[in-house]
Amino acid sequence: MTQKNLVSIISSGLSKFGRLEGKCSREIFVEAAKEAFEKCPNLDPVKDIEALFIGHMGESFEHQGHTGPILADWAGLLPRPAIRIESACASSGVALRMGIMAILSGMYNIVMVGGVEKMTHRTTMDVTEFLTMASDFPFEQWNGITFPGLYALMATAHMHKYGTTEEQMARVAVKNHHNGALNPKAHIQKEITLEKVMSSRVIAWPLKLYDCSLISDGASCLILTNPNIAKTFTDIPVHIIGTGQASDTIGLYERDELTTLKAGRLAGREAYKMAQVTPKDLDIIEVHDCFTIAEIIAYEDLGLCKPGKGGNLIDQNVTNLNGEIPVNTSGGLKAKGHPVGATGTAQAYEIYLQLIGQAEKRQVSGAEIGLSYNVGGSGASATVHIFKRG
Amino acid sequence: MTQKNLVSIISSGLSKFGRLEGKCSREIFVEAAKEAFEKCPNLDPVKDIEALFIGHMGESFEHQGHTGPILADWAGLLPRPAIRIESACASSGVALRMGIMAILSGMYNIVMVGGVEKMTHRTTMDVTEFLTMASDFPFEQWNGITFPGLYALMATAHMHKYGTTEEQMARVAVKNHHNGALNPKAHIQKEITLEKVMSSRVIAWPLKLYDCSLISDGASCLILTNPNIAKTFTDIPVHIIGTGQASDTIGLYERDELTTLKAGRLAGREAYKMAQVTPKDLDIIEVHDCFTIAEIIAYEDLGLCKPGKGGNLIDQNVTNLNGEIPVNTSGGLKAKGHPVGATGTAQAYEIYLQLIGQAEKRQVSGAEIGLSYNVGGSGASATVHIFKRG
Repeated sequence: MTQKNLVSIISSGLSKFGRLEGKCSREIFVEAAKEAFEKCPNLDPVKDIEALFIGHMGESFEHQGHTGPILADWAGLLPRPAIRIESACASSGVALRMGIMAILSGMYNIVMVGGVEKMTHRTTMDVTEFLTMASDFPFEQWNGITFPGLYALMATAHMHKYGTTEEQMARVAVKNHHNGALNPKAHIQKEITLEKVMSSRVIAWPLKLYDCSLISDGASCLILTNPNIAKTFTDIPVHIIGTGQASDTIGLYERDELTTLKAGRLAGREAYKMAQVTPKDLDIIEVHDCFTIAEIIAYEDLGLCKPGKGGNLIDQNVTNLNGEIPVNTSGGLKAKGHPVGATGTAQAYEIYLQLIGQAEKRQVSGAEIGLSYNVGGSGASATVHIFKRG
Repeated sequence: MTQKNLVSIISSGLSKFGRLEGKCSREIFVEAAKEAFEKCPNLDPVKDIEALFIGHMGESFEHQGHTGPILADWAGLLPRPAIRIESACASSGVALRMGIMAILSGMYNIVMVGGVEKMTHRTTMDVTEFLTMASDFPFEQWNGITFPGLYALMATAHMHKYGTTEEQMARVAVKNHHNGALNPKAHIQKEITLEKVMSSRVIAWPLKLYDCSLISDGASCLILTNPNIAKTFTDIPVHIIGTGQASDTIGLYERDELTTLKAGRLAGREAYKMAQVTPKDLDIIEVHDCFTIAEIIAYEDLGLCKPGKGGNLIDQNVTNLNGEIPVNTSGGLKAKGHPVGATGTAQAYEIYLQLIGQAEKRQVSGAEIGLSYNVGGSGASATVHIFKRG
């Protein structure tokens, strides 16, 4: 079996990530859509884009659900079908997968996928509460655990079982802040030191402030088509050659293991198989570093190293920007920011930029194959996509 | 071009609709899933069902988002991909469409689609607030208008432009309660009189209590496959031969016309064209009667009559159970109930039952082609599906 191009990306857009004061999500989404439209001058969005698949996590942030039609309206796409997907922080990773299915189904030739979230206008307490809705109400939320707490449970289990250290987790933050400092759209464009991470206040031990991703506003999008049509619109398409998705119990308490995300492993396996690639073939990866421990576990679940060896990869600088396999060149959720619904397609945006050679100061030279890994909640949803330069 | 069977329904399930005290949405969904599994004994859900697409409108009702994996877990489908779709009250109509796309894409052979909502444990004020999130925050919610108010604006516009009367709207309620009284799963199984509707208290003039659909708990699901595989599982498949979806502005204030839903017209047109049928070919219809005026407008938007003539259809008993083209044999949202996320696939469940001749006391004899029409919000989302007995 040879590699098959499932769909092709012909353009993409990303708003500035950060505290976008005075802007609501529809306005932020327009910023991303405009970039995608401007970068694809042969495309007439109104005529050519046939459907919109949007990741948007929380109706509570803006007291606004039913966001598909709103974003279609603001992006000038009415009366096209517009669908909101909610898979917690994997919402737009799943929206991307729905877009791929939409093209493969033959129902559409060209679709837009994307995501958006507006978060920074709410208090940290509100944001924490709204995000917990992605965990189990009766057995997690009700007992007072929040996402830092859930990932802290994974971190302590990983430390106990494999000897992973707080310093190793902190180095993930240092690496991603280094990358974020090179990304003009990142929420925080500032390097941090290991000391700064280690001495930052404890949020949920062993996770400290700088082990946690950011509360950000932002939007992202991609325009997908089938590989034949792609040639009409761009000389440098990027093809998606693999997609995987799996689910797990929403509650951590129901799982056999806390040191790995089963849904992530299964999604990765499906995507690798479909793409006919192995971890060794990857040139660049974006993973879901909602907390630093999540990036270490991601290395293991994606097969970059054996279970328990994720910390070593960080110690050996393997995943640095100039390492063997750079991870989170965008700055990741840690420094680029994590407007939850936007994250999945923002990861794909970074891979796309890298593969077409437009990642500027953070460009990984000669990158040909990339992977994005988007996780919802504490791993109840996971999607993996594999991309190839056309 | 000849009719083409896009996908086939091989089983379906529906929970009791109503005030399901003590049960949360995951438990209610299991009730629907169990029926679907039991009705399809050759199917091994764990092995055969490859993905789950769920309509679920409001994270606020149970302080619970990320419902895809939860329902997959409770239905025994882990670790299969499970995706929550939110298109307001059209959530599971859109989930059905995603299921069709999933099969057509070739990525899956068998998928489950469905929807669920738990509403009755909240106060009416809470429910009203949560539902308004499907309307525009800055220009509708903020100014205090709720869904009865939005549909009242449509009703008064329709009365003004076409002379539609309060009695005609009330007759929709009488008809649907008559049908609901024959449906053992309906929320309210009780006939009502025209006088009772007309004298019920005003909610938002001209809409009175009995012009409004119900706040209900409930779940629904269908199992879809491609037409070839369907034969393995059932001797009486129902094929879906048309699907349509369109979007409109979320706010009524942005529309040219209040007497019609443009998204509904466009979704219907797409579905009719794909199915190669006209309104005259339909034997049975389920429409989105969230308010009685919505059913009258639906007649017109689906082409059962000319614009403005919907009231006449009711006066002439055309859409009665024993009429020329029965509409809402299930009792509709009005009497069967409206657990918002469950409604789209509950409509499809009724059409399925009718087409396989299992609608018991409300069976329309010889029904061969049916249509379901599911609306989100005040019409910003709409889906139409056309079904044919296999």
